[in-house]
Formats: sequence, C-alpha cells, structure tokens
Amino acid sequence: PEPESPRMKTEVPGPTSQHLLKELDKIQNVGSVHFFCDYEKSKGNYVVDVDGNVMLDLFTQISSLPLGYNHPAMIAAATDPANLATFVNRPALGVYPPADWVARLQGALIDIAPPGFRHVQTMACGACSVEHGMKAMFIKYMSDRRGGAPFTKEEMDTSLRNQQPGAPNLSVLSFDNAFHGRTMGCLGLTHTKWIHKIDFPAPDWPIARFPVLQYPLEDFVEENIAEEKMCLEMVEDLIEKWGRKGMPVAGVAVEPIQGEGGDNMASQDFFQGLRDITNQRGIGLLMDEVQTGCGATGTFWAHEQFNLTDTPDVVTFSKKMLTGGFFHKDSFKPKEGYRIFNTWVGDPAKVSLLEAVVKVIQTDGLLDQARGLGTHCAIDFNEAAIRDKVMARLREKGVHTGGSGVSTLRFRPALILQTKHVDIFLDRVDSILSKL
Amino acid sequence: PEPESPRMKTEVPGPTSQHLLKELDKIQNVGSVHFFCDYEKSKGNYVVDVDGNVMLDLFTQISSLPLGYNHPAMIAAATDPANLATFVNRPALGVYPPADWVARLQGALIDIAPPGFRHVQTMACGACSVEHGMKAMFIKYMSDRRGGAPFTKEEMDTSLRNQQPGAPNLSVLSFDNAFHGRTMGCLGLTHTKWIHKIDFPAPDWPIARFPVLQYPLEDFVEENIAEEKMCLEMVEDLIEKWGRKGMPVAGVAVEPIQGEGGDNMASQDFFQGLRDITNQRGIGLLMDEVQTGCGATGTFWAHEQFNLTDTPDVVTFSKKMLTGGFFHKDSFKPKEGYRIFNTWVGDPAKVSLLEAVVKVIQTDGLLDQARGLGTHCAIDFNEAAIRDKVMARLREKGVHTGGSGVSTLRFRPALILQTKHVDIFLDRVDSILSKL
Ligand code: FES
Repeated sequence: PEPESPRMKTEVPGPTSQHLLKELDKIQNVGSVHFFCDYEKSKGNYVVDVDGNVMLDLFTQISSLPLGYNHPAMIAAATDPANLATFVNRPALGVYPPADWVARLQGALIDIAPPGFRHVQTMACGACSVEHGMKAMFIKYMSDRRGGAPFTKEEMDTSLRNQQPGAPNLSVLSFDNAFHGRTMGCLGLTHTKWIHKIDFPAPDWPIARFPVLQYPLEDFVEENIAEEKMCLEMVEDLIEKWGRKGMPVAGVAVEPIQGEGGDNMASQDFFQGLRDITNQRGIGLLMDEVQTGCGATGTFWAHEQFNLTDTPDVVTFSKKMLTGGFFHKDSFKPKEGYRIFNTWVGDPAKVSLLEAVVKVIQTDGLLDQARGLGTHCAIDFNEAAIRDKVMARLREKGVHTGGSGVSTLRFRPALILQTKHVDIFLDRVDSILSKL
Repeated sequence: PEPESPRMKTEVPGPTSQHLLKELDKIQNVGSVHFFCDYEKSKGNYVVDVDGNVMLDLFTQISSLPLGYNHPAMIAAATDPANLATFVNRPALGVYPPADWVARLQGALIDIAPPGFRHVQTMACGACSVEHGMKAMFIKYMSDRRGGAPFTKEEMDTSLRNQQPGAPNLSVLSFDNAFHGRTMGCLGLTHTKWIHKIDFPAPDWPIARFPVLQYPLEDFVEENIAEEKMCLEMVEDLIEKWGRKGMPVAGVAVEPIQGEGGDNMASQDFFQGLRDITNQRGIGLLMDEVQTGCGATGTFWAHEQFNLTDTPDVVTFSKKMLTGGFFHKDSFKPKEGYRIFNTWVGDPAKVSLLEAVVKVIQTDGLLDQARGLGTHCAIDFNEAAIRDKVMARLREKGVHTGGSGVSTLRFRPALILQTKHVDIFLDRVDSILSKL
C-alpha cells in the first residue's frame, strides 16, 4: 500500500545518490540529475529514493505518470500473458501492425479522443508527435494551394535537395514562453530558457506574444481583454509579415496552458480568436496537449474547456498518455502513404499500458476527482531565489515539486492525488511560508 | 520452435489483413501497410501473418529485430520480476534515474561501445538520436570557437527568439541518397525519396555526392579511387562554400553503408578521408549506425571495419539496439545540463531487453555467425519493375524481403539467421530468376 506520509532519512541527493551521480558522470553529463529512485519501493503518490527517503511526489517524472507508481492495473497489464508478444516483438507499426492494433487504437485512443476527432496517428514521444503534427499541417497547406494538381517533376527533384519549390519556405507561428520539444522543428517553436536553445540553428519563424494576464482576473477584466486582443492582432500582423517575406505561415502551434514557461493561461476567447484567424486564412491550428492532456485539468483534454466552435486541426499528446501521437481532423489525413512515417511510429507496448490507464480513469472516476481546473496548478513567486528556497524546504519536509518559468513552482501530480495529499502539501507549505 | 520452412495459405495481404486494412483506414492513412502480423505465433526467423501465412522474414520489421521473433532470452527479460518496475514506471531518466541505471548503461551499452568510446547518451528512436547527436556537434563547434568565453547576454536573448548570434546559422553536411530520419533536422540530412520530403521546409544545408562505386570492385580500381577522391573534394568545396555563405558546416553526417537509398558502400579510404577533413577543420563527424549497428555487418559496429586512425565524434544507434542513443567522444560531452535533454531521454524498459540481446550475441557467438560483411546485403536490379516482381514472387513463395533505393532488394535478417535459411532463399530466388 501507499505510505501514510513522507519520511525523510537524509538530505536529497543523499549519499547513495551522490555516489551514483559520480559514477554516472563518467558516462554522461549529469547536470540535470536530482536524485536516483528506487522504482520498486515507490508506490502510489510516493516516490522512494535510493537513500530510503519517502517523498510525496507532486511532479511525477515531469508530469508523465498518470496513475503514480506501481499501480496494480499497470502491473496487471505489464504481466498479462496476452500482452507479452507486444513487449518482446516491437513491430514497424506503419507496415506490419499486430492483429489487435485497430482494436487497441479504438479502445485506448479513439474512445478518449477530444470531441470531433476520429483519426489518430501514434508516435513515440512529445517531440516526434509535434514534428509529425507540423508535417500534417504542411501537407494540408500545400495540398490546398495545389488544388488537386499533381506534384510536379520540379517539386519532386528540388525536394530531395532541400530546395524550393519542393521544400517550400513555410513557417509555423509560436508564442513567447512556449515549449514544444527539443528536436529542430520543435525547438523552433520553443522559447522557454536560453539553455534549451543556445548554439543550435533555428528556423526564422514568427513568435507572437502569449497573453500575460493580471490576477485576480475579476479585478483586471478590461486590461486582460485588451491584452488578449493585442496578442491576437500580433498574430495577424506576423502572419501578414511572414507572408510578405516569402515564408508563409502554414500553421500556429499553441499549448492550452503553457506548462514549462511558467503556467501561463489565456481565456477561451483568446483560443477562439486563434481558431477564427487560422480558419479564415486557411492555415492549421496545432493544440499541443503533451503536458495538459490525459485528464490533468479535470477534462480529458484541456482544450475541451474552451468550447471552441470548431476543433483544432491537430492535437498532440505524450507524457501521461505513455504513447506519443496526435489526433487530426479528417481533412488532415495525408492521401499518400510514407509521408507521416518512421520505423516504429509508436509502440504497442505503451498502448497496452495506456489501455489499462484509460480503464482506471473511467472506472475510478478520476476526472471527477480532479475537479475545477484539475491538478495542473502552479504558484508564481516574486523571484526565483524564493521559489527555489521554498522548493528546497518542501523537499526537506518530503514534498517533491517542480519548477517552471522564471519563478514558478508547478504541481504535476498523478491523477490519483486525493485531498489528504493536498493537505500534507498545505501543511508543509504553510509552515515554510510563515518562517520566510 | 521455429518452423522448418515457409508455408503460404493465401495471397499477401490475405482476406483477414484486407479486412483489418479497411478498418484501420477509418483511423489513419494505410498507404504503407503491407499486412497484419500475428506476433504470438511468429517465431525465430519466421513471421506469421493474420491469415496464417508463415514467411521467412529477411526484413525483420525494417531491420529492427536483433534476435527474431519471441526469442526465449527476450521473453525471460520481459517476464523477469526484477524488470517489472522498469516496465511500469517510466522514469524521466535525465532527472530521476533508477538505482541500477549506471550498471545497465555499463552492461548493455558501454561494454559494446565502438572502440575508443566511454560516453553514451540514451534516446528513444533513430530520429532523436540523430537530432541530439547533431546538437552535441553544434555545442562542440560553438564552444571551440568561443574558446572558453562565457555565453553573452546577446546570445542568450537572441537564442530565445531563433535569431543570431544565439541561434547561429550553422549547417550539417550530408550525402546524396542518405537517410537519417524524419524530424526536421534529420530530414534536412535525408535525400532518399521525394515522398519523404516534399512539402516540408528544409534547411539550406550542403549535400555532397556519395561515391557510386562500380562493380566488380577489382575491375574498377582506378575508377573507384577517382570517384571517391572527387566526392571528398566536393565535401571540401561545399564546406568552403557554405563557410563563405555565412552558414558554416559544424559537422558531417554519414552512414557507414547507406541503408535506405540502396545499399551504397564506400571504401575505408573514403571514410578515413572524411575523418581527416573534419579533423583538420575542427568540425564533427557523426557516424549514423541506426541501421548498420548491433552486429548486422559481422562486427558490432560497421565503422569498426574502416580501421580509422581516430574514432568518429558521434555514433548514433537505434533499431536492433531497441533503445536509441549515441556514443560520443569525451570532448563532445556538454559541460552544462539540460542541453541534450527531454522528458524521458530513453527508456530503461528497452535497455533491459537490450541487456538480454547483448548477452545472447556474446554467448551464442552471433557476430562470428554473421561472417564477412555480415547480413547487411542487397541485390541491385536493372529496373524497379523487375525488383518489385522478384520481391512479389519471393513473397508468394514465403520469403519476405525489403526494397530500398530505386531498384534494390535488401536483406535485413535477424542475427540468428543460419545457412539453412539462406539456402531457402537461394532455392526460391533461383527458380524465380530462371523463369523471368
Ligand atoms: S523523436 Fe520521439 S521517440 Fe525519438
């Protein structure tokens, strides 16, 4: 069973973690490693490190454990003899799918697709999901402009040499403080920290301001309306400007809640505005739900809460979903094979675990348990130093959280978080804040 | 046990595959799907499809099954209770590695590293391995040019906005007919088929000619020396030219044997030439062993057979290795954390399976069994139509192969292939060719 409460034995990283850190440092850079975990002993909402410290985990492997540690349903799926062939023989899914693949896609993915979606493409992580989601937008954009005409010989030949017109000079618009991944295309959309970006070549794509809302919302109604209006106007200006530059915007990528650049939210009017602008101009809208998806916000997908008059074109997922991938509108399904493709295009082993997760979410009513805007919450501090101090003190008291943005503390707990766990956090944080 | 020989019951795709294809088509594009497999019934070198056809598989999921289907050692690893926590709790490896992570890296990866390598970074597929391998080259290139000076404020700020100098205008040189993956950076290095590339924006990076050798080699000694010399001169010219364009070449990416663009080989002198040119100019050399690695050529890594006077800087892997990743020289280890990073940076579940694979390769002497240039073989036909016809006839006779390049038939069998399997292929292909 899950521990009753945190129990700290050493500092974190403790001596065993520190020893392992030194060993790992001989093999790779360890600048990002916090501590080593004992994944056999970790249970439910509690992570246990190699020094025996038991911590309430409100960050859950960068927001990627839907049911916490060692959930019985995941263990059952991983040890189910019916899944064994899936774990041992990883197929090239795009060419030789397993007999039960359609049923698995249906049960694990189409059944929980955002309203309006009937198509899904599996991938393996957030980055390939966004990269290939962008490709779906490029394909749609060019195919619309081609108006049914076949590819020309010149397009075919130039594409192989990275030259126009076969490799057209298209762009994707993104936002300040956005995070969409770390491969070259994704990194072109990512604007969180310089250490993620510096020294890497990046495409000259337009970057709009993401609304910076003032709180409490009810005291800044007009200011926030003006702010969002200004951001939407900037989106339109940039689309015009990049069109004139000869680098037309084929799509817009946005997170429903910015989850790495500080938890930044905008209103449903802002997202409706984005949908209207992109539809009017015949360009794609990619809603990146890698961090927000799978129930973290109290609905299965965060953008459901925007009540858009039309769905986004592409919705990407990964992390808690265990498999990567993206949903897309019928019209974004490529007509030709091998365009959205790679060796594995996903992993049925992860989908078999996701099946178990989806069942638990439904049977245990975990979306209801999340309530309100769910578990995707954060606290902004005045400065990074104070945020860091509070996080360190919390860790000393056995509560593990994550940082984001400049001075934000973020919560990314599992969906099995209960009131009693929140109470433990509140108790610890109260005593820390009162002593600051 | 493995079947004795192929046994065909229907055409391929048979009626069950065709029914499933129709169902899958409602969910995604199926243009690349050949047939559906029964992964429980498949065994050793034989794949069984959903219509009960038993085929000798010489293509093995696009070259990604090291030990064929349902190998006892892989089943043992997948059902070993000691690995269960690894299958159920996927860690964010770059932040919270498992207690046994250093030992696993050592046993599964460092122990079989190419000579001279002591550093490895895990990733999850071929594309992220190459993307982050390129990043390692960009970091090294800029850090050499910075000569120990710290990042400037201007670099930090501009990097966030995709602008120079923080996002420098660097390029990577690749070769005609190369294949390095399908994300934006990788696709910039890929020049196989236009259907892989068309409609996607691509960086303006230099592309050199890959040697087109004439066979039999002993009859064209001088011609082939001249051809390779010309290609190396072109590499130097392009590096100069792109330097003048203000888009300096930070690295060269090359496959030891081009595995998608037709099996194209060059001599060890050519690769030594590449190593010399890149070393002289202080730029990186990335050897992409995604398809050639893990014993397919009779040595664990294909480039071992080039006897280079200095190792490549980065060696990428995936496919048969089950996990993605790259080895790199000590000097290519970034000094700062979070630069080569993502949520998962690999998957210990795959590494636990790789451990089993490595043990079997060693215990069963599978590298010796591969012999000569190993199992990475191909046949060039005069034209695509004949290649396609031979492949189709072979399939009718229960032998499954793969196509590549324009008119090449490629073999990518598992490492457990034995003489008796080759004999089955030879018997079938002889009778087909004699009737053409
Ligand atoms: S890019 Fe997603 S798994 Fe490699």
